[in-house]
Amino acid sequence: MENMHLDQHISKQFNTDLEKLRTAVLEMGGLVEGQLADAVKAIETGSMRLAEKVQETEDEVNQYEVNIDAQCTEVLARRQPAASDLRLVLIVSKAIRDLERVGDESSKIARMAIELSDEETDPDGFVELRHMSSNVQKMLNAALDAFARFDVPAALKVMREDKHVDREYKSAIREMVTMMMEDPRSISRVLNVIWSLRALERIGDHARNIAEHVIYLVRGTDVRHISIKEIEKQLDQDQ
Amino acid sequence: MENMHLDQHISKQFNTDLEKLRTAVLEMGGLVEGQLADAVKAIETGSMRLAEKVQETEDEVNQYEVNIDAQCTEVLARRQPAASDLRLVLIVSKAIRDLERVGDESSKIARMAIELSDEETDPDGFVELRHMSSNVQKMLNAALDAFARFDVPAALKVMREDKHVDREYKSAIREMVTMMMEDPRSISRVLNVIWSLRALERIGDHARNIAEHVIYLVRGTDVRHISIKEIEKQLDQDQ
Repeated sequence: MENMHLDQHISKQFNTDLEKLRTAVLEMGGLVEGQLADAVKAIETGSMRLAEKVQETEDEVNQYEVNIDAQCTEVLARRQPAASDLRLVLIVSKAIRDLERVGDESSKIARMAIELSDEETDPDGFVELRHMSSNVQKMLNAALDAFARFDVPAALKVMREDKHVDREYKSAIREMVTMMMEDPRSISRVLNVIWSLRALERIGDHARNIAEHVIYLVRGTDVRHISIKEIEKQLDQDQ
Repeated sequence: MENMHLDQHISKQFNTDLEKLRTAVLEMGGLVEGQLADAVKAIETGSMRLAEKVQETEDEVNQYEVNIDAQCTEVLARRQPAASDLRLVLIVSKAIRDLERVGDESSKIARMAIELSDEETDPDGFVELRHMSSNVQKMLNAALDAFARFDVPAALKVMREDKHVDREYKSAIREMVTMMMEDPRSISRVLNVIWSLRALERIGDHARNIAEHVIYLVRGTDVRHISIKEIEKQLDQDQ
């Protein structure tokens, strides 16, 4: 079974509860995807309006986290779910924490956009930023997709992609250090780029976490702290 | 009620389950406290042995996280806890994620210790590091104490302390930027100090999260994303 379905419960109300949880996570996911896209665009275009928009959305994202978590607790208390239903509730509670952190990191990028826009000089490091942000946005989108469809192969793909993003991050940081050494006047500006790269790398980690949650949900296997090769082997054996 | 007790269940076995969870969290907490202390000492003394010890402990910490999380799921499935019992299981599942992250951040500091030990020059920025690490270690210890005793006033104190650590972090970073500008040859070394300061600041955030979990557990109030003043007002009204 690669995918999982939610329509197997005797109680219709229970189905509705679980479906609501899933929808709420995807709504929250859409919101933070928007924050990330806006934050990246704010850096590229220097748009203050976009940067402020990202920060204004924080409250809404936080409210989503608190509300969904309360819903999870209520479903646990009232429905006492077991097996994959229980796992769904538990991973929802974990995934929203990851999404909230993605929102936080996007806000940090927006803050850097505001600081960078004061600078008159050329935007060193923007090539690296653009490249990495495009990959991280794709990763986050794929992780949410894997969650929406309870799709294990898609989740595994996200986990593999994270390794690639980590490598990209390290090489971008090296570039930035060279830039600072060659032109010490650029130090404070390049540091802002470094913080943004760092935030993107963290967002990649959260996307990977969401992917791990999906695998746990569908397969009942906790794959945190296990290498991707090892996971693939385990999943093969299960089939 | 400032504190909460676990000895009010009809089922003795259930008491044992919950007590086991609490003990496991505190054991894991002790382990990551040790990692943090060793990582900081590794930077100060340049001891490779300590830095490697921190990294070797990572596996054990990860295993704690996976095991405790599995225990939480089992308690939920078998005991179907309600009210504060349910909250206890849920915050255990959250707190261990924070603790695992503290371990990760400590490993990062240990990695910086290894890189910094190669340098021959004077350890610029160590005053700031030592100062901040001492405060963050106290915070983490206080957060675990608040958890051990389900102590709301102690948890609130940790939350207040985090604000202080955040200010300290910002001023330390400013110092580091000045240092790099004044002596560009120090850039890559100072960057390592910056990464360590950053890791310490994140550890402070995780200690704060644990404190927030304690308040939620005892009071049933979700205090994430609420100012400390607002929380104190809410708690006053409840009494």
